[in-house]
Amino acid sequence: MKKISLMGASGSIGTQTLDIIRQHPDEFQLVAFSVGKNIHFARQVINEFHPELVSVLEKSSMEMLKAEFPSISFTYGQLGLTEVAVYNKANILVNAVLGRVGLEPTLQAIEERKTIAIANKETLVTAGHLVMEAAKNYGVDLLPVDSEHSAIFQALQGENAKNIDRLILTASGGSFRDYSRADLEAVTVEQALNHPNWSMGAKITIDSATMMNKGLEVIEAHWLFSLPYDKIDCLLHNESIIHSMVEFHDSSVIAQLGTPDMRVPIQYALSYPDRLPLKNKRLDLAKIGQLHFKEMDYDRFRCLALAYQAGKEGGSMPAVLNAANEAAVAAFLEGKISFLKIEELIEKALTRHSCIKAPTLSEIQEVDEETRAYIYSLLSS
Amino acid sequence: MKKISLMGASGSIGTQTLDIIRQHPDEFQLVAFSVGKNIHFARQVINEFHPELVSVLEKSSMEMLKAEFPSISFTYGQLGLTEVAVYNKANILVNAVLGRVGLEPTLQAIEERKTIAIANKETLVTAGHLVMEAAKNYGVDLLPVDSEHSAIFQALQGENAKNIDRLILTASGGSFRDYSRADLEAVTVEQALNHPNWSMGAKITIDSATMMNKGLEVIEAHWLFSLPYDKIDCLLHNESIIHSMVEFHDSSVIAQLGTPDMRVPIQYALSYPDRLPLKNKRLDLAKIGQLHFKEMDYDRFRCLALAYQAGKEGGSMPAVLNAANEAAVAAFLEGKISFLKIEELIEKALTRHSCIKAPTLSEIQEVDEETRAYIYSLLSS
Repeated sequence: MKKISLMGASGSIGTQTLDIIRQHPDEFQLVAFSVGKNIHFARQVINEFHPELVSVLEKSSMEMLKAEFPSISFTYGQLGLTEVAVYNKANILVNAVLGRVGLEPTLQAIEERKTIAIANKETLVTAGHLVMEAAKNYGVDLLPVDSEHSAIFQALQGENAKNIDRLILTASGGSFRDYSRADLEAVTVEQALNHPNWSMGAKITIDSATMMNKGLEVIEAHWLFSLPYDKIDCLLHNESIIHSMVEFHDSSVIAQLGTPDMRVPIQYALSYPDRLPLKNKRLDLAKIGQLHFKEMDYDRFRCLALAYQAGKEGGSMPAVLNAANEAAVAAFLEGKISFLKIEELIEKALTRHSCIKAPTLSEIQEVDEETRAYIYSLLSS
Repeated sequence: MKKISLMGASGSIGTQTLDIIRQHPDEFQLVAFSVGKNIHFARQVINEFHPELVSVLEKSSMEMLKAEFPSISFTYGQLGLTEVAVYNKANILVNAVLGRVGLEPTLQAIEERKTIAIANKETLVTAGHLVMEAAKNYGVDLLPVDSEHSAIFQALQGENAKNIDRLILTASGGSFRDYSRADLEAVTVEQALNHPNWSMGAKITIDSATMMNKGLEVIEAHWLFSLPYDKIDCLLHNESIIHSMVEFHDSSVIAQLGTPDMRVPIQYALSYPDRLPLKNKRLDLAKIGQLHFKEMDYDRFRCLALAYQAGKEGGSMPAVLNAANEAAVAAFLEGKISFLKIEELIEKALTRHSCIKAPTLSEIQEVDEETRAYIYSLLSS
């Protein structure tokens, strides 16, 4: 029986993680979880899964739940998140929170030798050097939950890393894959939120349309698989059926395929190194008929080029990239800026920043806040 | 240094095996090989690779070579083939001969605990039960050289066989994939020999056009991967880029891809479990643009249906299938029968045969000869 702590239970990855636990009651047990403000959802999860520890965002919510469920421990806020992350009865931490709040709890969970199933992009993007060093020092497995990284991780099973020639991350192209740059001038928030293949949150759907999502994944892949950026390529693949590939030095390419269903990589991270049955829609290539591939266009998808640039410079640059992107995407979603302004703001933030070589956790947080403040200043000027 | 015995050096797989050995002089050494009548080729191989033992088909050729190369041991005929197979300094036997002559030497090499790289279809098709039992008893690895089986073998690295839902063998469809059955009535030998993707020998190119090649591969896959026939599917895939796939019970599909180059699976069998660099044309999916898939049509490709039928019945049926197919294809290549007559003759042979449950080696040979005789009798009547 694997005992699971889940940070971010109410999000897209969180609810699908609960579904996997639900399907395998003999394999997985939810022992601790966190939510934000969705107390109604927390009640449902408590009633269904009977965890031992629950963290919520606010103290008042915590006190309300405490009165309702006297046999369960409750905690709250950033400290509560860390308590969930390091909960002593858990073997695995699923980090499915959005944004940088997951970083510090994850580092602490690594020090407590928890296996980490990582769905939170910021953790590796902004602090990959700290996270990977800690994972190495404490002998901890970092298991990817993203479909692309899970595909690569699966393709690498039984293989020797020295034989890798390159990783090929596939990209659907997002909501605007058939638009020219001129077409992008006037796109609306509504159009951007309409992703062709995957049903995801708003932020990640916009990141998918700008291709920043792929950029963040490239940086994550750099850390997860310890490979230089020139060994990480991107390929446009409309159907999102091949989730990613590894090319070895004998020219053999191993790929992982499937219907777009995030429960597959989530379950793989939880069941690893084994696989468990999953009832879902099977891949039917004959029915799909064709798979399409196109070279990545780094001029068309400027955000992806910026991500490679920030990744290669390293140090604090990816933290700037991530913070600027978050602030700019939020501004776009609020209707304050146009779609193409997103990349413009990110580029300005990167240009302005003096790179810190190997930033500490607090330096990363400073850089993050400073970058957001800079983007806000540009928005209000 | 791995020391290699090669049965069938002058064929398509044989010469490509030599090319792999040539490219990795620090990894591989050719210690013994066999050829048939191509003595000129034998001389070249001796001069380049300096093996210790060479077997040829005829005694007279052996004596000629003996005089030319006094420091090398020579042998000949079926006994010579076995001497090459069990040569005491070799670690690996590459079985690349055509037809059933490879069967007995392979069984003897297994008893001598040689690793077997198997390119010869008849060995597993006609005597899978004997070969797999021997391999199990002597703890010997059977490494596939065929591109489809190698793809599956690669996809299974690091995986647990209990988690397999099904194997998906891809099939290009051969020379006549766009022909209806009516179109097939009048096709010529020349047309049949024009394979769209792979450059191979005449027999296997015809087998590819009739889809018997895929049928034999299905039977081989049944033995190599210990799976029932209802877990082995075929899928039409024009481009031969995805060489085959494995679907696991979590719906995840692992595939091996590459340009059509037999040196990749040959080298993988020799380098296994490691991979070595190979200089060849890299897969460029963006350039290829599209991959196509279509459901297999078992009415259109009657030979494939017959192969499943023979495989499921088991025992001596696959030996009948194989012998009838060899005799019928030879007759087609000699212009004696039409293309569609091939499947008709095979079906007749299968219908006529009374299945022997677990045939011995000599029973398999009898069934083989009897079946050929029966086909000849039909041809001359």
